[in-house]
Formats: sequence, structure tokens, C-alpha cells
Amino acid sequence: MRFLSGTSSDGVCEQLFTLDGIPGVLWTPEGATGPRPLVLMGHGGGQHKKAPDLVARARRFVAECAFAVVAVDVPGHGDRPKDEELDRIATENQARVDAGEEPAALIAGFHALVARRTVPEWQAVLDAVRQLPHVGAGPVGYWGVSLGCGLGVPFVAAEPRVRAAVLGLGGAAASAGVAARITVPVEFLLQWDDERVPRSQGLALFDALASAEKTLHANPGEHAEIPAHELDSTLRFFARHLV
Amino acid sequence: MRFLSGTSSDGVCEQLFTLDGIPGVLWTPEGATGPRPLVLMGHGGGQHKKAPDLVARARRFVAECAFAVVAVDVPGHGDRPKDEELDRIATENQARVDAGEEPAALIAGFHALVARRTVPEWQAVLDAVRQLPHVGAGPVGYWGVSLGCGLGVPFVAAEPRVRAAVLGLGGAAASAGVAARITVPVEFLLQWDDERVPRSQGLALFDALASAEKTLHANPGEHAEIPAHELDSTLRFFARHLV
Repeated sequence: MRFLSGTSSDGVCEQLFTLDGIPGVLWTPEGATGPRPLVLMGHGGGQHKKAPDLVARARRFVAECAFAVVAVDVPGHGDRPKDEELDRIATENQARVDAGEEPAALIAGFHALVARRTVPEWQAVLDAVRQLPHVGAGPVGYWGVSLGCGLGVPFVAAEPRVRAAVLGLGGAAASAGVAARITVPVEFLLQWDDERVPRSQGLALFDALASAEKTLHANPGEHAEIPAHELDSTLRFFARHLV
Repeated sequence: MRFLSGTSSDGVCEQLFTLDGIPGVLWTPEGATGPRPLVLMGHGGGQHKKAPDLVARARRFVAECAFAVVAVDVPGHGDRPKDEELDRIATENQARVDAGEEPAALIAGFHALVARRTVPEWQAVLDAVRQLPHVGAGPVGYWGVSLGCGLGVPFVAAEPRVRAAVLGLGGAAASAGVAARITVPVEFLLQWDDERVPRSQGLALFDALASAEKTLHANPGEHAEIPAHELDSTLRFFARHLV
């Protein structure tokens, strides 16, 4: 793990790093020492580790809860090189959708393919970050919706260090089988008028989670229109389960 | 409006009253003066104005938000006399359910019948309570699930003083038509394994609300098993919309 830069503002320290070629960013409270809860955030499709919404969320987690937050670029996203295999498949999928094919199974297959890389990558990130003295081996949370849900479901299912997860904007066709292996508390965000994930698919994915404690928050609006009050709720959800 | 008794503990003042024969209870912060948000709470079927869950909720609204809270007995409940017409219909309905009839339409009809009395009663309660100097004419909220939703939907639809409502554990068959006239923010509580209200019915009632801002909170468990963290959320919902 190699740190590239470190800046600090409003009490939040931001460090860019690379780990085996994976570009990442770590946010911690300024002057932090000792272990604390760590939240790994997965970004959305076409986005990257420093997408504005993700940064705003991370800074609130750090400033209000004194958590550490880490995010890395998914293959083919952000500062990572173009990935010819993923690009080719994405292009093929788009052509099939344009030709009238239902996107659900194609998205599912694509997420499964990417997750075979991101699950071990994110596990390596946890290994490395939790060795830092200002992060430590505290409880881990995961936050990810849309692509971050498609990749997050297999990650949370595979990773016993994750104690609670916020997921959403994903459907059962993509993730129900793996979701049935998730048993930690989950807050699941669903957009009632999601133009990309049919409502029944989102409800079925929530239903598939094996967690005894799970809570579905559904709000009107399209895929990208999660209301601001859900961030307040997310902070409390993690505070309830990671502290 | 006639006050029967007043007691105070832990900073919360509780006053029993009657208004035109309707027994009620008002909670306010000890020593309160001046107007404040007022939440009217509808109790569940077979319960009454001082059901333990309702009292606990009311006391938190008063202690943590400095709200006033008022609850009255629904006809045939609590300290009200037996109501022969309602008893007869309830008995007939039970016999029809026992004979295999689907309960949804029967419940809908029964709630509509009771609501024709409770809507004007609750409006009279608002009129009276809001004239008290320690309550005043501030914003009004409504909280009610199960029977409190069946009666709350027509109340919230009819009453322009209500600015925000928590509803839930109710179904579309009972309330969808009237719910389509509700436009204030709603937090809607649904129990994922509700043995009385089919999941699809609860989702359809949430869908029917015309409110631009509405949020569905669904949790695993049966009808009476709303998790404790939803009360925290309800406090924040009303704080967001009534303050």
C-alpha cells in the first residue's frame, strides 16, 4: 500500500493511495489514533471512488461518527486503465438491449463477472487499511447501491468482517441467489419509480436477504433520486450496528 | 372540554379529559407555555388511548421534541360505552371470516363506518386542544397504524391542519381510494410478514398515497412486531416536518 497524497479540511483527512495497482482513497478524522469502525463504499456504474455524492457521504461519516471510510475504483472505472474484456462485454450487452433483450440477466452476468475481481480486491483493501494505526481492526460496514449493490452483495456475502451493509437500487435477477447468504443487518434503499430496476425486482432482492434484521426504505423518484434524508438514516444505521 | 386529572413525571405532564363524551388524554412538556407542534395518535383495534406502546411513544415525543400529543378512545374502545351497532357488525364480520370470506373488504367497510364518526370527533379534539395556551395553533401531525391507519387515512385526507402523518399496517382494499387524496408527507410502516395485511395490500396502499414525499419502511416480522428503531425514525420524521 503506497500513499500518494494527503490533505485535510474541516476535520477530515483524505489520503489517496494505490494497492497492487488499485487506486483508492481513505478518509479519517484529522488527528485520529486507534481503531474505529471502517466503511467500505462501492461506487456506481460509470462513477469512481471520488464521485461527489460518495465524497459527501464519506465526509459526513468521518465528521459525525469518527468512522474511517475507504473507496477504490472498480475495474475499468476512475483512474484504472480501460479493461478490454469488460468494455467488449458492456458493448455487446448494450447492443443486445438495443435489439430488445431484457437487460436484467445481462446486468446480472456482468456484475457477477466484475465481482469475481472486486471481491478479492476489496478484501485486500480491508487487510491493508485495517493495519493502519488510525484505522485499526474495528467493525466493518459496506455501503453500495446500483453497481455498488451488484458488487456489494457478493462482497458482503463473502466477507465475515462486514457487520452491517447499506445496499439498494439492485434487483433479484442479478443478486438474489447470493443475497440469500447475507445474514448481517441490511438497510435496503429502493426507488419506487426506478426506471432501471423494476419495483418487483428490488422488492424481491430485499426479500431474498437472509438477514434477521433488515429494513427496506422506499421513496418516490427515479434511480438516481434517493432523497437526502436517507443519508441521515444511513448514518444512524451504521452508528447502531458498528459502534 | 373538561379536565379530569393532571399528573406529571419525568418532565411530561399528562391530563385526562372528556370532550362531548369522548375520553381523551393530553401529554405536554411540564411547564410548557406557548404554541408547539401537536401530534394526534390513533390507537389500534381493541386498544385504547393509554395503550402502553402509545403512551411510551407519546412521552418520547414530548420529552425529546417538546411536542404536545393527544389521543382519544375510538367508539366502542377504552372508557367509551359498548357500541351495539359496531359490536353487532364486528360479530357478523367475524362469523363471515370464520365461514371463509376474505376479511379485507369487511375490514374496509368497518373502518369506513367507524371513520364517519372518528373524523369529526378528532377534528373537534383538534379544535379544543389547540385553544389551550400550552398547545396552541401550531402544526399538526397524525400517527396511527392498523386501526389507526384505517381511521387515519380518512382523517388525514379530510383535515388540512395535518401537515405530516405516520401510517401503516393497513391495506389498499380498505383505504386506497381515500389515500389518493392525501398529499402531505407520509412515513408508512409495513411489516414484511404481516399475518393480517397481505404484503401486496400494504405496498399498494403506500403506492396509492398522492404525497410527493412519502417513505416506506418495511421490516421483517408480524403485524405487531414493528422494531424499536422505527420510533427513532418517527421522531425524526415529525421533527423534519412539524418544526
